[in-house]
Amino acid sequence: MDYEIFETKERVLAENAAAARSVRTYTREKGTFFVNLMASPGAGKTTALLRLIELLGAEYPIAVMEADADGDTDAAAIAKTGTKVIQLHTGGLCHMDADMTLRGLQRLGLDGVRLCFLENVGNLVCPAEFDTGADLKMMILSVPEGDDKPLKYPLMFQVSDLLVINKTDVSPIFDFDMARLRRNVEPLHPGMPIFPVCARTGEGFEALADFLRERMEAGR
Amino acid sequence: MDYEIFETKERVLAENAAAARSVRTYTREKGTFFVNLMASPGAGKTTALLRLIELLGAEYPIAVMEADADGDTDAAAIAKTGTKVIQLHTGGLCHMDADMTLRGLQRLGLDGVRLCFLENVGNLVCPAEFDTGADLKMMILSVPEGDDKPLKYPLMFQVSDLLVINKTDVSPIFDFDMARLRRNVEPLHPGMPIFPVCARTGEGFEALADFLRERMEAGR
Repeated sequence: MDYEIFETKERVLAENAAAARSVRTYTREKGTFFVNLMASPGAGKTTALLRLIELLGAEYPIAVMEADADGDTDAAAIAKTGTKVIQLHTGGLCHMDADMTLRGLQRLGLDGVRLCFLENVGNLVCPAEFDTGADLKMMILSVPEGDDKPLKYPLMFQVSDLLVINKTDVSPIFDFDMARLRRNVEPLHPGMPIFPVCARTGEGFEALADFLRERMEAGR
Repeated sequence: MDYEIFETKERVLAENAAAARSVRTYTREKGTFFVNLMASPGAGKTTALLRLIELLGAEYPIAVMEADADGDTDAAAIAKTGTKVIQLHTGGLCHMDADMTLRGLQRLGLDGVRLCFLENVGNLVCPAEFDTGADLKMMILSVPEGDDKPLKYPLMFQVSDLLVINKTDVSPIFDFDMARLRRNVEPLHPGMPIFPVCARTGEGFEALADFLRERMEAGR
C-alpha cells in the first residue's frame, strides 16, 4: 500500500469519553438520572417527552435540555408544562458531544432534579457516536421512517438501551411490519427492549414509564 | 420566556477557529496552497481530483488527504497516479474539523508540496460549519442532486469560494437547469465562480485548473 491510514476518530472519541466521565460525576453528585433521547427529525421526541412528563412529573422532579440546530419551539412546548427546561443551540452541528452536554447541564442546573432528559439533535448518525455521559440512551423510531432503518443506521440501534416505536397508529398506511422490525433489530442488539407507542394518543406510555422508573430505581 | 437559550456552537467554533489558524501557520511555513473539497457522497470528488492531478501535477507537487468515515478506495485511486496521499478515517464522523486536519497534514507531511487537497467527508451540512484552515473552499454539486440544492443547503454555497457543477453530461435526463441553479446561488453568494464540468470526459477542467493556478499564484 502506497499510503497510510490514519484514524482521526480515536482522538476525538477519547476526548469525548473524558468529558462523558465528567458528566457522570456531575449527575451522580446531584442524584440525577440522565437520559439521552435520540431520533430522526420529526420522529416525535418532544411529544413523547410531554407524555412522559405527564406520567412521571408528579413523582420525580424533571428537567429537560433541548438541543437543536436553531429555534426554540421544543423548549417552548416543554416550558408550558411548567417543567424546567433549557434550549441549547448547536448552530447547525448535527449532534451533542459530552463537553457541550456538561456545559448545558451546568447552565440548566440539576439541584433537586431527579430525572433529566437531553433531547438530542434530530439525526440517526452522529449522535450514535458520541457518549453524552447519559445513564440511559433512549431511541425513538417512528413508523413512517420504515422498518428497514436498523439496516441503514445499525450503530444507533446498537448503542441505544431501548427502542421506542412511535406513531404506531399509522402502521397500516406505511406498511410497517413490527415483526420485520424486530427481525432487523435482533442481530444488532439481541433482546433490545422495544416499546410500541403512539404519542398522539398516549397509548403504550405506561409501559415505557414503568421501564424508566425501574431503571431509575436500579440505577441510583 | 421561561427558559434560557444557550449557544453551544460558539465555543466549539471558537476552538475550531484557533486550530484553523494553526493549520494556516503550518501550510504557510511549508509554502503549500491548501484546498478543502466538499460535496455530497457520490458527487465525483475523487474523479475531479484525478482530472486536476492530470492537469496540474506536472507543474506543482500535489498531495491529497482523503477523509472518509471508513474505507480506502479513494486513497487507492489517488495513489495509482503516484500522488502523495493519506487516508484519514473519521470513523463515522460527518466532517473534518481543523484539529483533525492539522494532525492529518502533519502526518502526511507537506515538505515540497505546493498544492494540497483535502477531500472532506461526503456531506453538505457539517463540513460547511468547520473552517479547516484551507486557503480555498471548493464545492462540487453534481447534476443528479438537483438545481434546488442551494435552497436546502445554503451555508455550503455561502462559505465555498467556487462551485463546480459535475456530471453536466446527464443534465437533460435530470431536468437540471443551469440558469435556475445560478438564480438559486446568486442571492446566497453573489458572483460565485461556477465551473460546469464533466469528470467522466474531462470537459471543463482546463478552466477550473486555470482558476486554481491563478489563486495559487495570487495567494502565496
